[in-house]
This record gives sequence, structure tokens and C-alpha cells, in this order.
Amino acid sequence: MKKIVIAPDSFKGTMTSIEICSYIEDAVKKYLPDAQVVKIPIADGGEGTVDAYLSGIGGMRRRKTVTGPMGAPVEAEYGILPDGETAVIEMAAASGLPLVEKEKSPMNATTFGTGELIANAVENGCTKIILGIGGSATNDGGIGALTALGVRFLDETGREVTPDGKGLARIASIDAAGLPERIRRVKLTIACDVKNPLAGKNGAAHVFGPQKGATPEMVEALDAGLLHYNSILTKLTGIDRKDESGMGAAGGLGLSLKTFLDARMEPGIDLILDTAAFDEKLEGADLVITGEGKIDGQSKQGKVPVGVAWRARKKKVPVIALVGDVGAGYEDLYEEGITAIFSTNKAAVPYEQARKTSVEDLKFLTESLLRAYCAVR
Amino acid sequence: MKKIVIAPDSFKGTMTSIEICSYIEDAVKKYLPDAQVVKIPIADGGEGTVDAYLSGIGGMRRRKTVTGPMGAPVEAEYGILPDGETAVIEMAAASGLPLVEKEKSPMNATTFGTGELIANAVENGCTKIILGIGGSATNDGGIGALTALGVRFLDETGREVTPDGKGLARIASIDAAGLPERIRRVKLTIACDVKNPLAGKNGAAHVFGPQKGATPEMVEALDAGLLHYNSILTKLTGIDRKDESGMGAAGGLGLSLKTFLDARMEPGIDLILDTAAFDEKLEGADLVITGEGKIDGQSKQGKVPVGVAWRARKKKVPVIALVGDVGAGYEDLYEEGITAIFSTNKAAVPYEQARKTSVEDLKFLTESLLRAYCAVR
Repeated sequence: MKKIVIAPDSFKGTMTSIEICSYIEDAVKKYLPDAQVVKIPIADGGEGTVDAYLSGIGGMRRRKTVTGPMGAPVEAEYGILPDGETAVIEMAAASGLPLVEKEKSPMNATTFGTGELIANAVENGCTKIILGIGGSATNDGGIGALTALGVRFLDETGREVTPDGKGLARIASIDAAGLPERIRRVKLTIACDVKNPLAGKNGAAHVFGPQKGATPEMVEALDAGLLHYNSILTKLTGIDRKDESGMGAAGGLGLSLKTFLDARMEPGIDLILDTAAFDEKLEGADLVITGEGKIDGQSKQGKVPVGVAWRARKKKVPVIALVGDVGAGYEDLYEEGITAIFSTNKAAVPYEQARKTSVEDLKFLTESLLRAYCAVR
Repeated sequence: MKKIVIAPDSFKGTMTSIEICSYIEDAVKKYLPDAQVVKIPIADGGEGTVDAYLSGIGGMRRRKTVTGPMGAPVEAEYGILPDGETAVIEMAAASGLPLVEKEKSPMNATTFGTGELIANAVENGCTKIILGIGGSATNDGGIGALTALGVRFLDETGREVTPDGKGLARIASIDAAGLPERIRRVKLTIACDVKNPLAGKNGAAHVFGPQKGATPEMVEALDAGLLHYNSILTKLTGIDRKDESGMGAAGGLGLSLKTFLDARMEPGIDLILDTAAFDEKLEGADLVITGEGKIDGQSKQGKVPVGVAWRARKKKVPVIALVGDVGAGYEDLYEEGITAIFSTNKAAVPYEQARKTSVEDLKFLTESLLRAYCAVR
């Protein structure tokens, strides 16, 4: 009996990873009716993380009305895994860019709601939190989230600063006495593929600020704010995280969470693969089918197919990637453990036309693959 | 040691079958350096037939200045296979539509030059002729070719009619005494995939006349001319070929050649596969890789990949088709023996862009296929 592991990312704009798993499973069952199929739909951060965890691993959804990035309430969802103690939170659900599309304002946007979600998960009994930080609207260094959790950021007059981007520069002292012990003790892991440092030309404000609505002047102010906040923390803890990899993700959120909650940052793909017990499920597999909307040389920075391939390579299991588009540099992925890449495009047509047939094209390609596999194995 | 047979058609407008064979061979040699590779580049009619035969089987080229479709001389090429007695002639070289692009005139176009090529091949010692009849400019029922070979088509006054479309209707008697014995004895096989009958709504004039420049009035006149010619032949031979499959190909050329030279008509693909000793080369193969510019449900009417698949199916060898575009109805091809189809398109882009990367895309796909094959076999 063959064992086939199906572990794709979503194809952005056309199919979720859950749908893709199901289409691929259909083809496997059709041509290898006796095969053991293990589906592990994956999303590695940003929108879709909770869905991917819940559908891949199981668990339940929680809803909580929290403070949105601009202050207005938003109803945010997060997941609690079947162990009952691990919450999966997407910061985008509370503090995401899609929530502010019409009023982007990185000086005023806050991660307060993300902090509320963390607090709520802990109230609901969770001791472990996986936090996806893709797609944030914020550049507040995480002071919004910490404020929600009980930390006080005070200016020179002893008044609390606004928990947002513009507040950073005014911080003179920090009072963390109000941070509850059970929050401090939570095992927080941040799924993060961004390697940017906190500040400077490659930092949060310069690289991600503009897409969050920052003008050049705002970029400078936000960058200075993050540096100022870091210098305060350095004085407090003796640790300077200014140049640490990943501190520039999510508007500097990691800096706060690492400092006060001892958060770990891990590549999203490793985190979800670990949480999904991927290595265990891979045991004895004959083939892994993965996929991504577009694959190219950049995918080796921890995109789903490559993360999957790293694991499969160790166990010498071939990995076939089914993808929307194949871009430059794909050859590099062979060294990462990808056996072969096939594109779902089955005619020379523009994307606007191709996207309409994406499901049909994926089904076609998967059937082709299974037919070929059955014939030659 | 693996044995892999590479037998593709050309990808029209981008790559010849010879080029395709070579690209696929490169990938096979790269991943299966010990494999035995058998290349059989194929073209199944129309332009490229001579090239495909010569490169697939070997042989030499002959050039002969003959009468073009509109009377002006054209220099035409044909091939003589290594046996020294089989000529491969494309009627398009002497009587093809590309030769009259600016003065299409099916009433006046003649197959005379095709007859001259046949005569020249026989003069050069050939006793067997393979005649590809794609892309003709003519609708003369083949009287042009026969005239060139010595047959006289006479009107009621005993004068020779013009050997063209308009001459057909004026034929009153035929004098074949001038047809040399060695022409009569030649073993002539027509490569023909067209199943249309001689005349009527599905006949030569109605179906193919318009693309040869026929107005509706000309279509009627040509159709009547072919019917009239057939009735004369029926009186002469006792055989009515009016409804016979394939008589509508090449403006009715088959009617003349079958009647006077006992020509056989065969699907082009079977003919070239036989000539290339395909079945023999297929013996012991582990995999066949074929290909076509576009594959769809229509391909089962004897297009290269399907013709190849028919042979491979009998020997239970899997057939992978690498194609430019996959069109509607492709699923039907599985029943014909195609194991799986993969498209060279690796991004959603319009044809005008895709064609520029066709070589690179074919190489990508072939490598993907070989990588997958080596990993799972």
C-alpha cells in the first residue's frame, strides 16, 4: 500500500490549501484507491493560518471582539488546538492591514487588539500560543499589545503614551508590574519568516512602512521611535536587539514580545510542520505532493514547498510540487529537496483567464501526475 | 538499462520535431545517463514531412524545378530514403497553398508539378513513393498530376482540357495509353488523415475550397467538376469512388492516383511509423515520450501522440505527452493509450509571450518529468 502525503500551501487568489488537499486527494483515490492519504493543508502566516491549523490539526474557533488597529472594535477569530492549551492567533485578525484599507495610518495603528486576543486565549486556559504575524497594519513596536496585557509605557511626565507608532518616541519609562504572571509564563512562539532587523534601511519602518501608509517623513519618525524604544529596553534588560534578525517583522512586535514574554521566533513553516506532527506523518511515505501559487528561487526562504522538502529530504521521500507559476531560480529548489515541479497552466493564456480555470487545471495536472506515477512506479 | 523512445510531432511555430527530440534527449541523458535513447522525430503530413522522414530515417534530398500550382516554375524538394528506392514527396512542395498565397485560384491551380515530382522520383530509380498531401492549393481531382505523367484528358472535341479545377467539367474521354509502365507499377502510398468524401457538403470543394480561395460559385462549379470526373471514371472502371473515405483530400488528388496508379491511402501517422520501423524500435522500451503543439479531443483522429500511443498500448509501454497547450476533450486520449499529458506552460501568460520561452519551457518540463521519473520508478 502506498502512502502519499499531501501538504500544499494555498494558491493565493484562487484556492485554499484545504481545497487543494481535497482535489489532490480525489486524484490519488481515483488512481490509487488503496493508498493511504495524509492531508496536511498548510498556510505559513498571514491570513489563513488559523484555518490551516484548524483544518490540518483540528481544534475549535473562538471569537472575541477586540480593539481594531484604528481603535474601532473588530470581531476577531482565533483557534484553540485539540490539546486545549495551544491557541493559534493571527495578529492580522485584530491588527491587520485589510482592516484599515481606507484609513492606513501607521502612526496611529495599534497592536492593542492582538494583546487582547493573547489575554483572551490565556483566560480560556491556553498556556501555549502560536502567533502568526503576517499582514500587520501597525508599526508600534508591540507596545499596543503589551499595554493590553497590563504593561504601562509612560512619558516624561509619568502619563501613559498612546499605544501606537507615534507613542514610541515619547516613552521615558516602562512599568511592567501589571503584567499578570500567567501571561508572563505563556509559551509564545511567533511564526516569522521575515529576517529584517528592527530599524535602519532594512528595518520595519523603511521596508514595510510605505505599504502601511507611511510617508517618507513618517518612515523617519517611526524608525526613530523604534530605535528610541529599543534603547529604553536595552537600558532595562541589558540586551540590545536592534540588529537581531526578525525584529523588523510586524512593525517591531517581536521586540516587545521577546523582551516581556520571552517569545521565540521560528520560521512559520517549521512551526506549523512541527505543530502538525509532520515528521511523524511523513514516516513511511512514498511520495509527498506539495504546492504553492508561485514558486521561484525566493521560495527557498522557507516557503511551504521548500519547508516540506527539507523534512522529506531527510527521510529520502520524493517531493512533487504542483504550482500555479514557475518563476526564475526554480532550479535552486532541487537542492532543497524538491524532486520536480509541475505547473498547472495547461494553455498559453493570461492570468486573468487562467485563474478562472485554476481548479480544473489543478485537477488535470494532478490526474496527469497520478497517471504517470501509476504507470512508471 | 532503461530504454526510452522519443517520438514527438513538431510544435508548430516554435520547435521542429527534430529540435524537440534533441531537447528531450538532453534531459534523459542528464538524469538517466545509461539509458538507451531512440529518437524518432515525426511529422505526419503537410510541410515538414520530408524533413521528418529524412532526419528520422536518413536519406538524401533531391531538387527538381517543376510547374507550380499557377503554372510558374517552382523549385521543389523531395527525399529519397536510404533504401534508394523509396521517395518521400510532399505535394505542397509543388502544388501547395503557400506557393499561391497572393493569387489563390482553385479553378486554375494544378497538381501538374506533383506529377512531375513523381515522374522524377521514378526516373531516379524509385519504385516506392510516399506522398504527403497536406496543404494543397488545388482542386483538380488530380488530373494535373496524371497529365504530367502522360494521361490525356480530352473534351468533346478531342482536345486536351486544362489540367486544373475548371478542366474537370469538360472531360469527355480519357486516354491513359501514354502512362509509362514503370509509373503504373510504382508502389504509391498516400499519407492521408482526411476522411472527407470526394464531393457534396463534406467534399473537397465545400470543405476545403474556401481556404483555397473559392467563392461560393466556384465551390459549386468545382464540386460539380469532381462529380463529373468521377462519373467518367466510374464508366471506365466500374468503380464509383464518390463516397469513399479520403477522396476529398487534396482537391480530389486521391481519386486519380487510386484509379490509375493503384495508390493506397493510409493515415499519415501509421505510414511514417511503419517507415520508421517504429514497432521494432519500441521493442523493450520502458517509456515513450511524445509531444504536440496542442493536444485535444481532436488529436485522436490520428495526430502524432495518439498514433504513437496506439502502437505503445499494444506493447503496454507508458506514453507521456509533452504539449504546448491542452485543449478540451483531452480525457478521451487516455483511452487511446496516452498515459499522461503535461503542458510546457509554466506561467499564466499570453501565447505571444509563451512562445518566446518555448524552448526553455520544454526543457524545464522535460527535466521535471525525468526528475520525477527517476525518483519514483
